[in-house]
Amino acid sequence: MQTYDTSESISLFNRAREVIPGGIYGHYAASNKRAGPRYFSRAEGAHFWDVDGNDYIDYMCAYGPNILGYNNQVVDGAAQAQYRLGNTVSLVAPITIELAEVLVDMVTAADWALFGKNGGDSTGLAVRIARAETGRRKVVKVTDGYHGVAPWMMATMDFESARTGTVPEDGAHILQVPWNDTDAFEQLIGEHKDDIACFISSPYDHPTMRDNELPDDGYWRKMEKLCRDNGIVLIVDDVRAGFRINLAGSNVAYGFTPDLICFGKAIANGYPLSALVGTDALREAATKVFYTGTQFFNAAPMAAAKATLLELQRANAATKITETGAALNEGLVRVASQQGYELIASGVPAMPFYRLANVPTAAHFAWVDECVKRGVYFLGYHNHFVSTAHTQADLGRTFEIVNDAFIAMGDPGSHQTA
Amino acid sequence: MQTYDTSESISLFNRAREVIPGGIYGHYAASNKRAGPRYFSRAEGAHFWDVDGNDYIDYMCAYGPNILGYNNQVVDGAAQAQYRLGNTVSLVAPITIELAEVLVDMVTAADWALFGKNGGDSTGLAVRIARAETGRRKVVKVTDGYHGVAPWMMATMDFESARTGTVPEDGAHILQVPWNDTDAFEQLIGEHKDDIACFISSPYDHPTMRDNELPDDGYWRKMEKLCRDNGIVLIVDDVRAGFRINLAGSNVAYGFTPDLICFGKAIANGYPLSALVGTDALREAATKVFYTGTQFFNAAPMAAAKATLLELQRANAATKITETGAALNEGLVRVASQQGYELIASGVPAMPFYRLANVPTAAHFAWVDECVKRGVYFLGYHNHFVSTAHTQADLGRTFEIVNDAFIAMGDPGSHQTA
Repeated sequence: MQTYDTSESISLFNRAREVIPGGIYGHYAASNKRAGPRYFSRAEGAHFWDVDGNDYIDYMCAYGPNILGYNNQVVDGAAQAQYRLGNTVSLVAPITIELAEVLVDMVTAADWALFGKNGGDSTGLAVRIARAETGRRKVVKVTDGYHGVAPWMMATMDFESARTGTVPEDGAHILQVPWNDTDAFEQLIGEHKDDIACFISSPYDHPTMRDNELPDDGYWRKMEKLCRDNGIVLIVDDVRAGFRINLAGSNVAYGFTPDLICFGKAIANGYPLSALVGTDALREAATKVFYTGTQFFNAAPMAAAKATLLELQRANAATKITETGAALNEGLVRVASQQGYELIASGVPAMPFYRLANVPTAAHFAWVDECVKRGVYFLGYHNHFVSTAHTQADLGRTFEIVNDAFIAMGDPGSHQTA
Repeated sequence: MQTYDTSESISLFNRAREVIPGGIYGHYAASNKRAGPRYFSRAEGAHFWDVDGNDYIDYMCAYGPNILGYNNQVVDGAAQAQYRLGNTVSLVAPITIELAEVLVDMVTAADWALFGKNGGDSTGLAVRIARAETGRRKVVKVTDGYHGVAPWMMATMDFESARTGTVPEDGAHILQVPWNDTDAFEQLIGEHKDDIACFISSPYDHPTMRDNELPDDGYWRKMEKLCRDNGIVLIVDDVRAGFRINLAGSNVAYGFTPDLICFGKAIANGYPLSALVGTDALREAATKVFYTGTQFFNAAPMAAAKATLLELQRANAATKITETGAALNEGLVRVASQQGYELIASGVPAMPFYRLANVPTAAHFAWVDECVKRGVYFLGYHNHFVSTAHTQADLGRTFEIVNDAFIAMGDPGSHQTA
């Protein structure tokens, strides 16, 4: 199997570095540090093509937005119809109301919705609403939990590049508890009696660079009770997992009801939109917080979101991508095993995190590179994503490529163990 | 002249209130509090139509994005071509580089560019870069200056609704100086020697609810010198005024060079994009700050921005809208005068702020309402915007409508003075 030439990507990257600090920035900068493609030329379904013309089966799905396949006709058609009417105008479009109604119908905990652009817009708003409602200051999050790049979030991350440009006051009232540790939360409540505004967490733990962890039995019911008993607003950051586990909210799968849910990523299949939904109890506080942005009222992304949500429902997407993800995991573990490697898949099947066990991290990333340069786009340090556009043929081809990648890696014993 | 029926807008608004806190939120909520239309059905050029079918000559331009007219074919064509290739994909699109190159070519102070979605993304990044570069904490802004809704900004606003949901620490290091007051800035520098990271300001003062103010002669040169002499990063928030005064940056018109310029609003004619541009001296700091969002890498808005910038250049847009705005101001002042009223136009002609003098604020807003219900969309408390799509015919029709609005107001003496 021929490996890919990505010289045009490198050439463009060198051009980019002249006019963009670092060439590629933000989470997309992951591609700066690895071999492989850096710029796409086109995308369709579960595939993208790089600027060198190479075809990739894409398991990053734009880091989450692509849930129905790139250039989905139903979604794009809805967006284009709204573009023809108008996108960013001096008044709001009626589609805003229709989208809010769809979310309120679909998401169990939702009595209302507010829209922004990125997930971080929603998480920041959720925290402000919680503080407005409770009159309290403290925000409890899970250690390593990521809720966007706003200073309140970055100032408490334990890697320096996150904290760069923040001041200590940005994180003054942010407290952290380990994932799945209800005792730690109970202890914090004791220490900060009547000053905890909210607990914010993803529905399960999906950090980078280590296995993802599902909630222990009873974890969420206990956390919910602790919140209720102590007047703490319970916020689910469903930006990444939302609509992949259960269309009614990931919390439904884990048997609890939050006060606020943050959505983004998959909500509009790649059109820029995020949403915060909440319960009637927080409606008044939500009305009081001033939340806005020039682009928050773009109508075409709202039309895309409505079409995406209805299409997810019609296609039974959460079930479909869970089944596809499970088949992907099963096949990858099998192929690895046949070549003498142990692959660990963690997290939910629709968002699998992979780790090669019993080899050093460098060997894991070398394996990812071998997959990428044959046309399977993995990332290695981040969970992956499965879309409804991933076909059985894609999976079959993936297993062939991954098998070749393992062969290129050679004997597992040849990799120095950590 | 028949006044408009907006009953369908009101009906939709009542439906919206069920599923969206406050019905309409953010800066668009201005329409909740006034008579007139609340939802658009379509838009074209310098006009939009509300859901009741009424036609408005629009002087809000979506609060700034609409600079080339709604549904501009050049811009929309560029965006659609990129949509067909792919919008939000697991890699960056080459258009990102092309757009950065156009900005670096066009904007005098720009050696590089980074892209986000809203102006507030750019202002927040600018402050983080300034702190990263200087290792200092304090941010100096102009009193009442608005740079987005992030907590660092909102916590220091003097109206309570802005502060709702923030904590005092959010504004811990934010200092304010009055507009056009170099002495106040010099005094602050004395008080916070070696701890001021940056000064952030719009190129001229465009607050809400009061006359906008241009820089005094020598103001910016003095501010620039104070920044240079004291190692303070100079940030221009050109989100609102950008590309309307001078395509090379509004600072060029005022004879100074900032270190960082924040752009947004008009940059992509309604597609969601913002940019921060900066000088080589800050390139390394810009590389160090982690800046990202799911939607920051959408390719279609970048294609729209490139097309917008080139079209602004081709159409000599800044000059054209300045001329149109000047003609609009002149005509409105004349019509007002003929009816016995004094209208004050302030700010730059492309972004005029209007105030009826010698009458109470309530009479000013009543006049705005009379204009709106006849088809001239003014807002009353905020500066307005002129686009290249506003024609002589639009202006002529505007003067007729505004004349009728003054007639409907009756004798100026009938309005109780404040």
